[in-house]
Amino acid sequence: MLKYQQIAAEIEKYIEQNAMQQGDKLPVLEALMAQFQVSKSTITKALELLEQKGVIFQLRGSGIFVRRLKRTGYISLLSNQGFKRDLEDFTITAEVLELDVRKPTEEAAHSLNIELAHDVYYVKRVRYINGQTLCLEESYYNKAIVTYLNKEIAADSIFRYIKEALGLKMGFSDVYLRVGMLNEEEAKHLGLEAGSPKLCAESIFHLTNGLPFDFSRVTYNYQQSQFFLQGNGDFS
Amino acid sequence: MLKYQQIAAEIEKYIEQNAMQQGDKLPVLEALMAQFQVSKSTITKALELLEQKGVIFQLRGSGIFVRRLKRTGYISLLSNQGFKRDLEDFTITAEVLELDVRKPTEEAAHSLNIELAHDVYYVKRVRYINGQTLCLEESYYNKAIVTYLNKEIAADSIFRYIKEALGLKMGFSDVYLRVGMLNEEEAKHLGLEAGSPKLCAESIFHLTNGLPFDFSRVTYNYQQSQFFLQGNGDFS
Repeated sequence: MLKYQQIAAEIEKYIEQNAMQQGDKLPVLEALMAQFQVSKSTITKALELLEQKGVIFQLRGSGIFVRRLKRTGYISLLSNQGFKRDLEDFTITAEVLELDVRKPTEEAAHSLNIELAHDVYYVKRVRYINGQTLCLEESYYNKAIVTYLNKEIAADSIFRYIKEALGLKMGFSDVYLRVGMLNEEEAKHLGLEAGSPKLCAESIFHLTNGLPFDFSRVTYNYQQSQFFLQGNGDFS
Repeated sequence: MLKYQQIAAEIEKYIEQNAMQQGDKLPVLEALMAQFQVSKSTITKALELLEQKGVIFQLRGSGIFVRRLKRTGYISLLSNQGFKRDLEDFTITAEVLELDVRKPTEEAAHSLNIELAHDVYYVKRVRYINGQTLCLEESYYNKAIVTYLNKEIAADSIFRYIKEALGLKMGFSDVYLRVGMLNEEEAKHLGLEAGSPKLCAESIFHLTNGLPFDFSRVTYNYQQSQFFLQGNGDFS
């Protein structure tokens, strides 16, 4: 973790511990520099990160303010493994149905910018929230980047492993959503009736250097799923 | 429009006109400064804006690269009025069903941080894409901020009016999503069967100073709706 990321985490903890609410003002830049004993550029980068994460907003000439969601218990649509953070009171588990090395589908190859002859790790798992099905997930990892995976890793957090064990840096993601009706197979895995509503999220995850390393399709159990998103900047 | 916003728009146009693809490298900072005849700080702010918008990604020590979605025809979930930009080949129209000044619901009052006795503009409209229903929208605007609205404005773009005529600056938004089944009234407005799948997006839009000015509930026609989202930074 880089210095500014560490400072960002500490400021976030400070907001939590002081139960600060949306609109509450944080100390000014100079006070934060003194408090954390770091340079202006480190604080500035930490604040930018927090702004991007939707934890604060900055108002030129007025200061730095806390940003807080009005509702709790929602899942972040933009974090893949972030269930634990967003749903702190819930227990998330995963059951790995399949894990093997294979050739990608056309869609996966296109999404990952690789040839059809290229190897991918394919992972299919069901994730549970407090023992109820949360989602069915199919992922294709470019094996040239994610060089090793096994069922033990997949039963826990693949993204944490990719970051901590493989040392890869996650950059940005594109997510495509559509709403539809569950087919027989999806319904079976989620324990619902075929024809029930579903939210399907297809995501392409990239490293900081722009290389796509994971294409995933997640089908959510609509009864368990409430999502939040935070937008920054002009939304018109 | 501020200088850096203008430069950002010009860089975006440059990417379009040169049909640049994801991973294509943009000129270095110094070259952009020379090309647009502006300071380093202006270019830096323009690039930050483009990074936030998902148009570029920056790789420390390597340069500035173009970011492009793999798929077209999707609607941005984080832009309220952005249908025109994201769906350039489509025609979006709106039919205003109701528009009046009233007291907010409890949910709207809570979302807008106002009292129940406070006035809001209530707007209910159906939006169409190429003549097909796209969504049913109900919005509550804090009348102390959005001081005037009428049906003519609501039939066009309320957000453009808010920005251009009222001069308000849009800051950030929180969006809550859930999937469910259409009730009778929603189904009637969308021309679908009751019980069909729906995506419901409830959003709170804030000014740059953090004041919430609009709470909206949008119910999408699942047959017409495909959405995209762009995430930045670490998504684990």
